[in-house]
Amino acid sequence: MATQSLRRPRIGVLLGDPSGIGPEIVVKMLARPQNYEQADVVILTDRSMQEAGEAVAKLRLTPRIAESWETLHAAPGQATLMPLALIPASEIVIGEARAASGHASMKSIEAAVAAAKVGRLDGFVFGPLNKHAMHLAGLGHEDEMRFMKALFGHTDTISEFNITGALWTSRVTSHIPLKDVSSHITFEGVCEAIRILDAALRDSGLARPRIAVAGLNPHAGDGGAIGREEIEVIGPAVQAMRRAGIDAIGPLSPDTMFLTAKRDGLNGVVSMYHDQGQIAMKLLGFGNGVTLHGGQPVPITTCASGSAFDIAGKGIANAEGIQAAFDVCVGIAQARIAKRAGH
Amino acid sequence: MATQSLRRPRIGVLLGDPSGIGPEIVVKMLARPQNYEQADVVILTDRSMQEAGEAVAKLRLTPRIAESWETLHAAPGQATLMPLALIPASEIVIGEARAASGHASMKSIEAAVAAAKVGRLDGFVFGPLNKHAMHLAGLGHEDEMRFMKALFGHTDTISEFNITGALWTSRVTSHIPLKDVSSHITFEGVCEAIRILDAALRDSGLARPRIAVAGLNPHAGDGGAIGREEIEVIGPAVQAMRRAGIDAIGPLSPDTMFLTAKRDGLNGVVSMYHDQGQIAMKLLGFGNGVTLHGGQPVPITTCASGSAFDIAGKGIANAEGIQAAFDVCVGIAQARIAKRAGH
Repeated sequence: MATQSLRRPRIGVLLGDPSGIGPEIVVKMLARPQNYEQADVVILTDRSMQEAGEAVAKLRLTPRIAESWETLHAAPGQATLMPLALIPASEIVIGEARAASGHASMKSIEAAVAAAKVGRLDGFVFGPLNKHAMHLAGLGHEDEMRFMKALFGHTDTISEFNITGALWTSRVTSHIPLKDVSSHITFEGVCEAIRILDAALRDSGLARPRIAVAGLNPHAGDGGAIGREEIEVIGPAVQAMRRAGIDAIGPLSPDTMFLTAKRDGLNGVVSMYHDQGQIAMKLLGFGNGVTLHGGQPVPITTCASGSAFDIAGKGIANAEGIQAAFDVCVGIAQARIAKRAGH
Repeated sequence: MATQSLRRPRIGVLLGDPSGIGPEIVVKMLARPQNYEQADVVILTDRSMQEAGEAVAKLRLTPRIAESWETLHAAPGQATLMPLALIPASEIVIGEARAASGHASMKSIEAAVAAAKVGRLDGFVFGPLNKHAMHLAGLGHEDEMRFMKALFGHTDTISEFNITGALWTSRVTSHIPLKDVSSHITFEGVCEAIRILDAALRDSGLARPRIAVAGLNPHAGDGGAIGREEIEVIGPAVQAMRRAGIDAIGPLSPDTMFLTAKRDGLNGVVSMYHDQGQIAMKLLGFGNGVTLHGGQPVPITTCASGSAFDIAGKGIANAEGIQAAFDVCVGIAQARIAKRAGH
């Protein structure tokens, strides 16, 4: 029923690596009352980490303490804390990649995924992790995205999206040498990057996302004078996706595409390689960039900035990135609830 | 003598393509009295173009009219106009690439180079040209940079620099397909790009420019895991240039390098390929970007934006880019005069 009011999503919040800026920025974000208006917030953490974050942020949170998932009921305007045994206070060392910290990060992720798997969370947000610490703690996966996928027992394609402001990006190639990029730009690869970005934007609640697709070469090849991938691969892929009902345009000149996307209020950009997108996205707003782990069973987000050991514990890290990550997670969870309710 | 006051540089100003935004933005710039404080300004134009620019800009310039180069004397606080026969008013058509306009652009460049060759100009600035119009008019060179080099009878290496704010860039490769970039990244090429950028920045008056050098691959290769050009070519070139007395650092991760350069107030960035630099420079300030034709006998600058036929004649084009181009030209001319005077 379109007139029926929808339930609020329940969003888990993890503090990230205890040695980094995660606990302090998450505490700063959770101290903002407006975050409890759109969602029921469940903090999954060890009290040791909460208190360490509060001490640095010079703020105190007053969540209700949950006894168990079974008896957990959200109170309006207040967070609920699910106490976990992750790391003793004496083991928290700010600014160092440590096995104990990596272990704490992994345990919190395991708890969040376990809750999401059985419908107790509609999504979750995590503070910055430290890959090196997790590898010291024995992470058996390349990164946290694949770790979560394995915990979910998930088999669909997953994909990382970078979001800055209202602009989302996906890319056709990622962490490969620049010299190998061209040979990895395939018709199917370009189609797939357009398709998953379109699907993710629709999943966030947009009815008809508008997507720009980058060329590969300077001036998008200038009619074939500076490379032919635009004519032979990228252009045909864009046309195929348009025929499939996706509002994609391109290939556009890489050096003005982001100006065009901003000016025209486009929703997404498909880059051909790592730095083509990342140079722009970092300049457009490194401070509040969001990483979305797309394709997982629930929306999972974090801020684009890392654990930032160099400034951790100083109280100077700002919360805008993790706030933006929270907002994206809530937005997608709300859109999914609305969709399931037939709205 | 360090205490002796130096003569003011004499700077030529050309209005660019008569069909584009050049005349209107140059008129807007020349209407600002502060531009006559640091330099003696000589406008090289047809009165038809001046009047067309004034009509669009809704401004009127009141330059003294020069009788000849021999009798030209600058008046403080006032421009001097050197009248040229470039194009009849009836031939000026806004918003179209025309042979008559291209011819006018080429004639004004010929006049400016002729004056600079015999020491009558210490540098010049030109409004946006239109390459297509100049080719219609029979330009026998790839671009205006090579046309000017030929007019000067100049044989040294020339190089285009992009300048946004206080940040200058040069690049190792330019208009080539992305797949060919890696094979064009050579030790000598990287050294040369660092060397010419350092020389150009010194020529602008900086005693010891600070230059960042980009890596080629994502995360600058991440220690060899994502490409080896940083280890085998770029790193050794940076070290060689450091030993030669240049304050260069790198290779830096391409996606955060421009943030680093801005934060630390670096003077220059060496990019490995076109879009690595251009994506960033356009986001950092397309509106007031400057192109410097480095290596010519006198400083020659223009704004990064083109003739913009789509908005020409509407009075909405802003003058910040051409103003920045003027400022860069004056700065280099002043530094050269000071250097010749032994300051």
